[in-house]
Amino acid sequence: MIILGIDPGLATLGYGFLEKDGRGNVSVLDYGVVLTPKEERLPARLAILEQGINRLLDARLPDEVAVEELFFTKNITTGISVAHARGVALLTCVKRCGRLFEYTPMQIKQAITGYGRADKKQIQLVTANLLHLKGIPRPDDAADALAVALCHSFTSRLSALYQI
Amino acid sequence: MIILGIDPGLATLGYGFLEKDGRGNVSVLDYGVVLTPKEERLPARLAILEQGINRLLDARLPDEVAVEELFFTKNITTGISVAHARGVALLTCVKRCGRLFEYTPMQIKQAITGYGRADKKQIQLVTANLLHLKGIPRPDDAADALAVALCHSFTSRLSALYQI
Repeated sequence: MIILGIDPGLATLGYGFLEKDGRGNVSVLDYGVVLTPKEERLPARLAILEQGINRLLDARLPDEVAVEELFFTKNITTGISVAHARGVALLTCVKRCGRLFEYTPMQIKQAITGYGRADKKQIQLVTANLLHLKGIPRPDDAADALAVALCHSFTSRLSALYQI
Repeated sequence: MIILGIDPGLATLGYGFLEKDGRGNVSVLDYGVVLTPKEERLPARLAILEQGINRLLDARLPDEVAVEELFFTKNITTGISVAHARGVALLTCVKRCGRLFEYTPMQIKQAITGYGRADKKQIQLVTANLLHLKGIPRPDDAADALAVALCHSFTSRLSALYQI
């Protein structure tokens, strides 16, 4: 089964593809970012994001998609721009893959480190370790996207076990 | 020329179509709302919004589209959900109509009443008067969408006059 994890953003949207075998072993297929130029106007940037996500979906045909939820306390302007991008990401994915899941930052931290208040760097380190990567993937957005995908692979395994 | 105005929202997205003739006279063609059910999950609601907006674009083939910008100081949760919907609205429109414009609430107030601090009800009353409507269109979202479209028709006329 192929899982696509997405860390939404307008300038930089992170993605990570994982493959999960029948025994629950997870390996990395690919990761990276979709970029949109700051000079472009917002509608054009959203169209670039959609094209980029569609190319990812074409390339790997994921069975399930996991997208990080937004959690903001600091910069509302950034929050609003990420939410525009996240709306486009959810729309683009749900049109191609009905099995779409959303996870809060807290759920991701909890699933990966067992501790809901772990910091960003700890999550990235544990994710890299669990996925047998030699270092933390760069940029951060790609590492975060792999964490979302990994969180989904753990959570969906538990859901299957307990038939939730 | 046909102008589509959009007041973005997740549960209720307002729209209004205006026709502008060669002398700058503006008349209402149609207005209303696209609704998404609260019981549905966010990705499904965004897909319903996209379908609704595409139906509007199919029906009237607007030459220009004007979308209200977001301005939030109060409820960040509402702001984030409107921004998801607004991202989908911008994407859907820009794919079909390259002449897409954004206006802040302040620009809309200024264009319609000449006063940037007019309240919502005043804007709706003046919009209804200028468009020779018998009353304020219902619901508010539709009235607000007509105000955005009217703001665009004024602003684009000035831009043309002064070749901005």
